[in-house]
Amino acid sequence: MIISFEGLDGSGKSTQIRMLSEKLEMIGKKYTVLREPGGNSISENIRQILLDKNNYAIENETELLLYIASRIQLVKNCIIPLLNDGNLIILDRFADSTTAYQGYGRGMDLKVIRFLNNFATIDGKYMPDITFFLDMETDASLSRMESRGEEINRMESADSEFFKKVRNGFIEISKNEPGRVIRINAANIKEKVFSDIESVLKERNII
Amino acid sequence: MIISFEGLDGSGKSTQIRMLSEKLEMIGKKYTVLREPGGNSISENIRQILLDKNNYAIENETELLLYIASRIQLVKNCIIPLLNDGNLIILDRFADSTTAYQGYGRGMDLKVIRFLNNFATIDGKYMPDITFFLDMETDASLSRMESRGEEINRMESADSEFFKKVRNGFIEISKNEPGRVIRINAANIKEKVFSDIESVLKERNII
Repeated sequence: MIISFEGLDGSGKSTQIRMLSEKLEMIGKKYTVLREPGGNSISENIRQILLDKNNYAIENETELLLYIASRIQLVKNCIIPLLNDGNLIILDRFADSTTAYQGYGRGMDLKVIRFLNNFATIDGKYMPDITFFLDMETDASLSRMESRGEEINRMESADSEFFKKVRNGFIEISKNEPGRVIRINAANIKEKVFSDIESVLKERNII
Repeated sequence: MIISFEGLDGSGKSTQIRMLSEKLEMIGKKYTVLREPGGNSISENIRQILLDKNNYAIENETELLLYIASRIQLVKNCIIPLLNDGNLIILDRFADSTTAYQGYGRGMDLKVIRFLNNFATIDGKYMPDITFFLDMETDASLSRMESRGEEINRMESADSEFFKKVRNGFIEISKNEPGRVIRINAANIKEKVFSDIESVLKERNII
């Protein structure tokens, strides 16, 4: 069982993943949280290239392929062995982020992205079973990010027009795959957001 | 005009590229030599991941995508502007290395590799016009490499069975695209190898 969390930065993915982790601890369910891009040393190396603000000359196509490279390393090196060991896998971003950011956001060919995501998930075999898309207005997510006071990285430094396209991408994905992708109103307080997530997981007998 | 040099390590690519560079200097032709993977700071970062012997856990698919990522960065960020500026581009390895090493060597799906190489060269538009495949017996190239006394990197530390498959891959490519890929007997002394290369370039009115 693979569960992914998607949405813009500032939409509360980390908080919800932490709350879900606590829940899983409580009920004694074996789980692992993995971050995209990253989660293992090779993917972390790739992540550094992607997020380094000095790499402003990185081409869209290069960015896309680095995300896919990091993803397949995560799938083969972490996700598959952890699944075989009985873990529930929780992913902080996965294939849908590529479709939303590089496809809808940067306007790259969605067919190419579909081909690459399919390759990275071994013919789709390791696509998530459930994806929670934490949705909120882009302005709200941007102001949440700013209020964190952290230095923003290369991916986060795009303009608000870009983030609107990305959000629209996530909305399209959730419309195209309503069985897998659950759109959650992330503008609510975190307890309400979590209870929405919990309901879906209970309904599907996961917790 | 793009010219690439391919072949196993130890087949004399660097030497021939140096001899060609001297020739081009002499006749006053504007040129640039680019190395694959690498040639710009982002691709060099990728190259470090690929060649680091500590990254033994790197998956074949990850390796493949990193080469392609590095390639597209090189194409868009270096090759295209340098071509526009009137340079003859000389490539030390390019798309055919991926077909030979990852495809024939590691047994990865040639259709996937074709798709990715096509993507990296912008629908094939920036495939080389001429490719010199410097061919020699694998044992000879391995012993040349050993005699260099350098520490060998992760890619070079594979076994001789692997290199036989790679060589066979290059041979297949040269059979499939005889107009572009010229197989040169690299077991000859370097002056003879270079005069073979020179003949082809003269025949095609490049020098």
